[in-house]
Amino acid sequence: MPEFFNVLPPDEARDLLFQNLAPIAEDEVIRTEEALGRITAASIYSPHALPYFRRSTMDGYAVQASNTFGATESLPAFLTVIGEVQMGQAAGIELGELQAAVVHTGGMIPETADAVVQIEFAQTVGGVSGIDFPYEIEVLRSVASGQNVLQVGEDVGHNDKILPAGHFLRPQDLGGLMALGITELKVTKRPKVAIIATGDEVVHPSQNPGPGQIRDINSYTIAAQTRQAGGLPVVVGIIPDELDVLKLAAEEALKQHDMVVMTAGSSVSVRDVTVDVINSLGRPGVLLHGIATRPGKPTIVGAVLGKPVLGLPGNPVSAMVQFAMVGMPTIYRLQGLPFSPRRGIVWAKISANIASETGREDYVPARLDDTSDGLLATPVFGKSNLIYTLVKADGLIKVPLNQGGLAAGEWVEVQLF
Amino acid sequence: MPEFFNVLPPDEARDLLFQNLAPIAEDEVIRTEEALGRITAASIYSPHALPYFRRSTMDGYAVQASNTFGATESLPAFLTVIGEVQMGQAAGIELGELQAAVVHTGGMIPETADAVVQIEFAQTVGGVSGIDFPYEIEVLRSVASGQNVLQVGEDVGHNDKILPAGHFLRPQDLGGLMALGITELKVTKRPKVAIIATGDEVVHPSQNPGPGQIRDINSYTIAAQTRQAGGLPVVVGIIPDELDVLKLAAEEALKQHDMVVMTAGSSVSVRDVTVDVINSLGRPGVLLHGIATRPGKPTIVGAVLGKPVLGLPGNPVSAMVQFAMVGMPTIYRLQGLPFSPRRGIVWAKISANIASETGREDYVPARLDDTSDGLLATPVFGKSNLIYTLVKADGLIKVPLNQGGLAAGEWVEVQLF
Repeated sequence: MPEFFNVLPPDEARDLLFQNLAPIAEDEVIRTEEALGRITAASIYSPHALPYFRRSTMDGYAVQASNTFGATESLPAFLTVIGEVQMGQAAGIELGELQAAVVHTGGMIPETADAVVQIEFAQTVGGVSGIDFPYEIEVLRSVASGQNVLQVGEDVGHNDKILPAGHFLRPQDLGGLMALGITELKVTKRPKVAIIATGDEVVHPSQNPGPGQIRDINSYTIAAQTRQAGGLPVVVGIIPDELDVLKLAAEEALKQHDMVVMTAGSSVSVRDVTVDVINSLGRPGVLLHGIATRPGKPTIVGAVLGKPVLGLPGNPVSAMVQFAMVGMPTIYRLQGLPFSPRRGIVWAKISANIASETGREDYVPARLDDTSDGLLATPVFGKSNLIYTLVKADGLIKVPLNQGGLAAGEWVEVQLF
Repeated sequence: MPEFFNVLPPDEARDLLFQNLAPIAEDEVIRTEEALGRITAASIYSPHALPYFRRSTMDGYAVQASNTFGATESLPAFLTVIGEVQMGQAAGIELGELQAAVVHTGGMIPETADAVVQIEFAQTVGGVSGIDFPYEIEVLRSVASGQNVLQVGEDVGHNDKILPAGHFLRPQDLGGLMALGITELKVTKRPKVAIIATGDEVVHPSQNPGPGQIRDINSYTIAAQTRQAGGLPVVVGIIPDELDVLKLAAEEALKQHDMVVMTAGSSVSVRDVTVDVINSLGRPGVLLHGIATRPGKPTIVGAVLGKPVLGLPGNPVSAMVQFAMVGMPTIYRLQGLPFSPRRGIVWAKISANIASETGREDYVPARLDDTSDGLLATPVFGKSNLIYTLVKADGLIKVPLNQGGLAAGEWVEVQLF
């Protein structure tokens, strides 16, 4: 290994890379209906209060609360129902002293009312059917002013900041925007990520590999992870392990995309080629030569003129774990998200000892099974060349940076795929 | 409330619904590259072993292990390097006794070799450059037979079941398929989900609501959740609260889609209309009239001729929580997935007491903040009419069925959105 081989833990690796990225510039306006999983490009403010009229939260009677004070089952308050508020219409009823109006959930509260008596706590006098107004009711419980009423602006006020810039849009966010009539919005563009596979032994999956040849896996796992993080993957294809050819391909990819990922052959010589290619593309070039994790230490992290350029190890397990660690957060970052969305984790008891070294974060693929004893995580041991160790796994057990290993029976954090 | 008001906990509600659904029938063949998040329609078997030739996991020298037995730094084994295995080519070298061949990570192992000595544990004799063959090396450590070698079929064997039917496809699964040359596969069709909004007070989001009117939220939150679960949402629009009109719209929707969701107005009378409509569509009709959760108890669960039909409460928070509880698992089920994908959860300390009732599962929206004291979950209290309680939240705190509440400072499970 050369002397300058520069290795950092994942957090520091990401930080160093992010410091060398250009600020987010490009955005586009899209329909709110299509915005699931996109990131807001600017803060959004409410054009009006929500609700913008007072609404009932119950089926019942709109009243003046003071008219019900002291009412009980044995000593009810008597009120006269003078009409009904129709759904989707102005209340159109003015209540006088000791008067009430039928109101439905979501209906508008008449201006002179300030509370709603739930239908369960009132009864018509003498079994009157309640179709012809006016009729009398007995109110069996008092209500306080404001009870069962949504106030104007109780959800959001006029001009409130409803979403900040850099917000990941979820179903409820789309609903919140629609509620205010915001049917389109400005989001950041999805970064285009060029994926270059190298390796003289690698052939396209549609090809029958000859002796000594294997099919390209990494282009497709990385493309799928890119999609999961909101990026637009562009599979460039397989480029031979020659400095000049690879340099040309990387240059072209960098011009036309927002990020370049090379999944290198795994031998030391090929890794050196990747380093040379990244450094040849522009400043600052290679930022670090490895990340202190297993699998995947020999990951090359670079930046060229504000765009991220990664050189992943050729082993498919290493490539996927490293891309989850550094590549996906970078794609989120390029979309203007200050932090990656919180990853789902579960706690599980491990079924076997796991050895590790301090000073290195280990990620061990694990299968999860629900047992009568709780969730059980069974490590799927296997060399990092074996893609099916990940196919058989439901997530990754994390062995922290400064821990020597984990003992069977311990409860551990498993990051879900 | 009528006597027959039939309420079940979420698990039992799902089970009852699933028993009334038709088995999954339709599938389609798509490109593996496009299969992220889709569900396999049939088991898939490996067409050949992987790897299908023996490969080195290290840069070094292919050897016969027995030739290195007993080798140490002070008493090395002397071997003659007779050639180099080129990447992507047949090994093409036959090793005799005490001979070795240069091999790179991923390279093919010569037939007569059975182990690889890492480059770090060998040195050329007398500083010979190692370019012209043959040359001598000293092996400083012994290797066991099979060491640093991937055996044929070590990843998967020929004809192994690599994926079962009903498997949710992740990045590594696509990689595993590509590794075997499986560039297209049979997946279940994405269910088409018709979403009908009802309510005389509801208008399209692009419209300016008049007095007493509100914009449609639920069509869009449910559509986004449908997409998250792999379904294809079809927003039918807003249908008036009239039995005949709604019946006609629901009939049409059921004919053309795999699932129908009605987001009802919230008043009791409107709920009764939904029940009548579902029962009018066919057998068995309404299966239950509520789910024992808060928010969202008045959810109507039905099935008609094997297709699920749901009537969700009109309150946007209730509608979303209920759809996550029953709707999304149903969409997964329609795709042939035996269980919904494991939901991401985090453990956090709650900042305030939460009251609940036994016999009911409560879901309280909560904001998550990283603090020096660990992850803190702050309940976002608010009426279930207020969509922005969910916009401000990162997940839901679950208060289990038979627990009276949670105390501030307790560690709780938060289901991430």
